[in-house]
Amino acid sequence: MSKTSAQSYDPRTFKALTFHDAVPRFRGGTDTPRAYLERCLETIAQREPVVKALAATNVAAAQAAADASSARWKAGKPLSAIDGMPVGIKDLLETKDMPTELGCAAYKGNFPKRDNAAVSALRQAGAIILAKTTTAELGGAHPPATTNPFDPSRSAGGSSSGSAAAVAARMMPAAIGTQVGGSIIRPAAFCGNFALKPTQGGINRGERMATSMSTHGPHAGSIEDMWQVAIEIASRAGGDRGCPGLIGPMTTPAAEKPQRLIVLETDGWAAVDAQTKSAFAQVLEALKAAGVELLTRRSSAEVEMLERAIASAGTVANEITAWENRWNTRNLVDQHPDGVSQRAKNVLAKAEAMTPAEYRQRLIERTLAQTVHAEVGRLADAAITLACPGPAPLWPGDIPGQPLAPRPTGDPVFNFPSSLLFAPVVTMPLLGVGGMPVGVQLMGRPHEDARISGLARWMAGAVAPVVV
Amino acid sequence: MSKTSAQSYDPRTFKALTFHDAVPRFRGGTDTPRAYLERCLETIAQREPVVKALAATNVAAAQAAADASSARWKAGKPLSAIDGMPVGIKDLLETKDMPTELGCAAYKGNFPKRDNAAVSALRQAGAIILAKTTTAELGGAHPPATTNPFDPSRSAGGSSSGSAAAVAARMMPAAIGTQVGGSIIRPAAFCGNFALKPTQGGINRGERMATSMSTHGPHAGSIEDMWQVAIEIASRAGGDRGCPGLIGPMTTPAAEKPQRLIVLETDGWAAVDAQTKSAFAQVLEALKAAGVELLTRRSSAEVEMLERAIASAGTVANEITAWENRWNTRNLVDQHPDGVSQRAKNVLAKAEAMTPAEYRQRLIERTLAQTVHAEVGRLADAAITLACPGPAPLWPGDIPGQPLAPRPTGDPVFNFPSSLLFAPVVTMPLLGVGGMPVGVQLMGRPHEDARISGLARWMAGAVAPVVV
Repeated sequence: MSKTSAQSYDPRTFKALTFHDAVPRFRGGTDTPRAYLERCLETIAQREPVVKALAATNVAAAQAAADASSARWKAGKPLSAIDGMPVGIKDLLETKDMPTELGCAAYKGNFPKRDNAAVSALRQAGAIILAKTTTAELGGAHPPATTNPFDPSRSAGGSSSGSAAAVAARMMPAAIGTQVGGSIIRPAAFCGNFALKPTQGGINRGERMATSMSTHGPHAGSIEDMWQVAIEIASRAGGDRGCPGLIGPMTTPAAEKPQRLIVLETDGWAAVDAQTKSAFAQVLEALKAAGVELLTRRSSAEVEMLERAIASAGTVANEITAWENRWNTRNLVDQHPDGVSQRAKNVLAKAEAMTPAEYRQRLIERTLAQTVHAEVGRLADAAITLACPGPAPLWPGDIPGQPLAPRPTGDPVFNFPSSLLFAPVVTMPLLGVGGMPVGVQLMGRPHEDARISGLARWMAGAVAPVVV
Repeated sequence: MSKTSAQSYDPRTFKALTFHDAVPRFRGGTDTPRAYLERCLETIAQREPVVKALAATNVAAAQAAADASSARWKAGKPLSAIDGMPVGIKDLLETKDMPTELGCAAYKGNFPKRDNAAVSALRQAGAIILAKTTTAELGGAHPPATTNPFDPSRSAGGSSSGSAAAVAARMMPAAIGTQVGGSIIRPAAFCGNFALKPTQGGINRGERMATSMSTHGPHAGSIEDMWQVAIEIASRAGGDRGCPGLIGPMTTPAAEKPQRLIVLETDGWAAVDAQTKSAFAQVLEALKAAGVELLTRRSSAEVEMLERAIASAGTVANEITAWENRWNTRNLVDQHPDGVSQRAKNVLAKAEAMTPAEYRQRLIERTLAQTVHAEVGRLADAAITLACPGPAPLWPGDIPGQPLAPRPTGDPVFNFPSSLLFAPVVTMPLLGVGGMPVGVQLMGRPHEDARISGLARWMAGAVAPVVV
């Protein structure tokens, strides 16, 4: 098997594609963004037929942008630290030079020729908009054809399937995903990426602001590229309407060792397989050995309160999102009865049975959970938990005549809490379970994005990856 | 001059078109929604050539909907208290059976065949979507051709120009407007309507959620119809994403006499003409005579703090909104360089000179003003102020070669404070100044929409209109 084909994943040896360490070569003239791009295009040619991470590419525009970037580096005048970085954009976000089809048949051929605010900011920073990456339909549960780069019989996760898989397959060093429930962190965890799900409102969602828990965030092969992409966008386009936006240093926060971490089991713990539990336990042991104090629901009554506050996060988050998407989906189904999946129609039916009062109840439950987190979160530097319940699930596709699989892109049970809490999360590729990646995440309180990025940077350097 | 032509306005004798009092006739079989609609169509035929309030109509669909409603009333099974009410929809909101052109050349022919959430709720309640009403371009400052129903040489206000004018011209009993700065209340005040600018997030904006201060609200000929339209929408479509939405009784709140009102001058007081000041003073005298205590910046140091907190509301609100619209407008100008007005391009240029840090400063200023209002607002039942600085301005149109008039639809200086404070406002047609309407508004604290509607109902009944 060639180095660039699907292969068993080992976090100790896997070398992700990175950009930040190419910058000295651009400065020194031994490499150029155009050459970097051509290497990405070679990898795409090798991997894309099986991984199927890309909804569209614009190679000519990318090459022209890379040439312009190469000239800027040569002149010593790069626009930013990500000038020349090839980036993928989840196909929910509009791009003026590629179609935006939202993984949905009803949007086939949709090409509004507009740039999402984050895309516009990336271009201003000199980044190269190389491709649209696949998405589960409308950011929901109905999966694209994308496969996991480490095992084509498995899902890459969703809904940011293509962003996760393209980075994991080394097609590009970073890609933008979006999350409402678990759509950035879960696929990143299944694919061995670093990823940031920012504080709610942290990165300008532009026209993609349909729901109250929708966020943009970068997938990357390194924490340095992850942070740099996020801060280059936020420093130009800011956050969402009414939000201060991501705040932090213009280069990756320095590694910071936590004194204390809250260990969360969440509602998902019961579903975790024994191998993954054992691997996570080894990470916790390594943290203790490094002198980090761990608070759990057993050692702290306050942590138990937080566990209880997020125990129904999935139900609350799903009902809020279904209600908020209701009118958009209804219009789409009315216009394109055959262009929307049965999975999406099932969610719509549930939403149309809800009342405004029921929606308000869910909002109150969300506020209560946030209030508990605000109180309990300050007991420690951050919270740590698995980022997914184990390796990515096998996904043979829907079987005609059989009931629809409820979660073909995997269970977001470990992701609902941070979405509900508006809390920033960084996932790190720390575990290899049965030859597949499994992520571990750090969660901060709202607006602690830079803090948890520094803590994650320390962990990624100080805690040895675990293979089981 | 016929009764249905433009005529000098006298709030003591002007009879607005109302719907709530037709309901007993529908029940009794002496009138039908179809007959009501036909009367509206007659008025439209008489007034529209001069008033120019309508961007589109769909008469056939309206007549079919009115027939269906007539059958429901006949069967004793109306869908709601507004079943059969002809309603206009500001042309910023999408409607599946009429184009949505946003008052902007770039959107000429735009017909997405989707219903905005509020429109969908109105149809569910049996209301008749009769027309799209004109809007200033993109809800901004560049005016439509609409004229004031009481003087065609004057503006109807903006940006909800058509909604205000159509109701004032008795073409329909209610119409939906939108406000970010002053776009519901100002035109309503210039046209002699009742109107509600709800608490921020009170009525589901659907796809029109571009900015953090954008709201939907009804214009109506009576406070009963105003409230009924608002609550029928909110009880079906709820509020904006993440907001509890408008809460209150399913019929108009009972009239409630205030014990105490805060009188606000706002930054606009200096620009008010002597006639309007004198008319407003007579209203205040009438309130005092009725036993209502008035707090002013001279009698209360706390009111003075509130006045100072909102003194730069216009600058803060305009910069927030310009920043938030920046990416949408940039995409539009890039796609349609000749399809966007110079007024809008000037706003874009200012927005593109802003930084995320400057935007954050404006958000902090907004939060500070809201904090002062939360504290000071509780000293009284509500705040009272003029809803506009005087009668609608004369508007002869732009003169080629001359600098653009900065505010052809009038000055929103009395409307910025409530927008910035996320506060609900009801305007009442209490003043006639030089033969033109001038509104007086009550402002509550956020979520006191029902409360101020009850207070406004008392005022509209107990305080005699003033003519100067």
